[in-house]
Amino acid sequence: MTNPTAAMLVIGDEILSGRTRDSNMYYLAGELAKVGIDLKEARVVSDDAQAIAEAVRALSARFDHVFTSGGIGPTHDDITADSIATAFGVQIDVREDARAILEAHYKTTGLELNAARLRMARIPEGATLIENPVSSAPGFTIENVHVMAGVPSVFEAMVASVLPKLTGGAPLLSQSLRVMRGEGEIAGMLAAVAAEFSDLSIGCYPFQKDGAFGASIVVRGADGARVDAAVTRLSRDLDA
Amino acid sequence: MTNPTAAMLVIGDEILSGRTRDSNMYYLAGELAKVGIDLKEARVVSDDAQAIAEAVRALSARFDHVFTSGGIGPTHDDITADSIATAFGVQIDVREDARAILEAHYKTTGLELNAARLRMARIPEGATLIENPVSSAPGFTIENVHVMAGVPSVFEAMVASVLPKLTGGAPLLSQSLRVMRGEGEIAGMLAAVAAEFSDLSIGCYPFQKDGAFGASIVVRGADGARVDAAVTRLSRDLDA
Repeated sequence: MTNPTAAMLVIGDEILSGRTRDSNMYYLAGELAKVGIDLKEARVVSDDAQAIAEAVRALSARFDHVFTSGGIGPTHDDITADSIATAFGVQIDVREDARAILEAHYKTTGLELNAARLRMARIPEGATLIENPVSSAPGFTIENVHVMAGVPSVFEAMVASVLPKLTGGAPLLSQSLRVMRGEGEIAGMLAAVAAEFSDLSIGCYPFQKDGAFGASIVVRGADGARVDAAVTRLSRDLDA
Repeated sequence: MTNPTAAMLVIGDEILSGRTRDSNMYYLAGELAKVGIDLKEARVVSDDAQAIAEAVRALSARFDHVFTSGGIGPTHDDITADSIATAFGVQIDVREDARAILEAHYKTTGLELNAARLRMARIPEGATLIENPVSSAPGFTIENVHVMAGVPSVFEAMVASVLPKLTGGAPLLSQSLRVMRGEGEIAGMLAAVAAEFSDLSIGCYPFQKDGAFGASIVVRGADGARVDAAVTRLSRDLDA
């Protein structure tokens, strides 16, 4: 049994221009690991209709799930929903159930549901809505693509709405060891352990602290007993 | 005149598993904006030879420059150099100039240049070395792909070695306005200004603060006078 696979697509000039540091990828990666969906690739593209449509088509064909963030607000640079409709060759228009959600929300806030805000009710044909408990404007799922907002608090709430509906796999378990030794010194031993525990992923991540090099060794896998065994073996060999 | 384009490829299971939050993409995006190279796309792939080679080929064909981070250390999971040699169909072996750099470095540190560390002198045929003033093991440039380390301090030093050698364009200038009004309220006005200043990129990025919605409006372009004019116009219209 292999776990379902996923990709993430972050949409937004603000990430590529260096203005904003993305946090949604890091958040989603952690949430997917918990439910046993393997995040295999992530991409960031700009607010460009062709770039969005191409990336959605490529990732949707290759992975079980695609999660997008960004570009579903009311302003002129929010073109994600239309680009995704293009990617799947379907119509897009204001949909009554989405409009009803916005109407109810703006009634309580006393704000006008103007033309710009109504754009947030544009949903591609055949999509199902993703609930947004933070600011009401829904995301949507079309085929295997889950389209969510870029504002982190809203993105995170939408992820919480979507994930329980998906079939996960074995959660990715991990344990790590931290040693103040250079990677080059422990690499031979690590390679031998990695070869013996080939069902696990054993990664080595160097760092610098106070001018000295250290390494975090991370063992990941779905079988807790095997992860334990590999960490025990590594601890012994690192002490030797 | 259009600016040169670039893509970034982040290589590493530790990002996709949610263990590590990438910082190199954010750093590179900022540095490229300063020198007028337009970052158009970023991807994150796992430590998988085929995934790395495919992404390198796709991005190298499409953009003027590709910058990679991660996977060039001494351990078994460091497979970037070999995967990039595969992508370009060239040989890879320990190269004497790279070995000499490592020998000189390990002589001063009193450490042994063992087989694992010597892997860091494996350089694809036809590549030129990228200087690494932090920990000596070099990166390399092959065709339009600049291959650098994943440790942020080393990545940043390598970016500083590479960027002065590249031909940049007009630096991307930006100014921003912050308003405590919902996006939906200002979207119509923004769209009108964006249409009038179609040579600029005008982005609107919502945020939440103390339960209220606000927006940052960011105007980007290469022509400072036009950016000024757009910001002046936006300020006036936002006050109206």
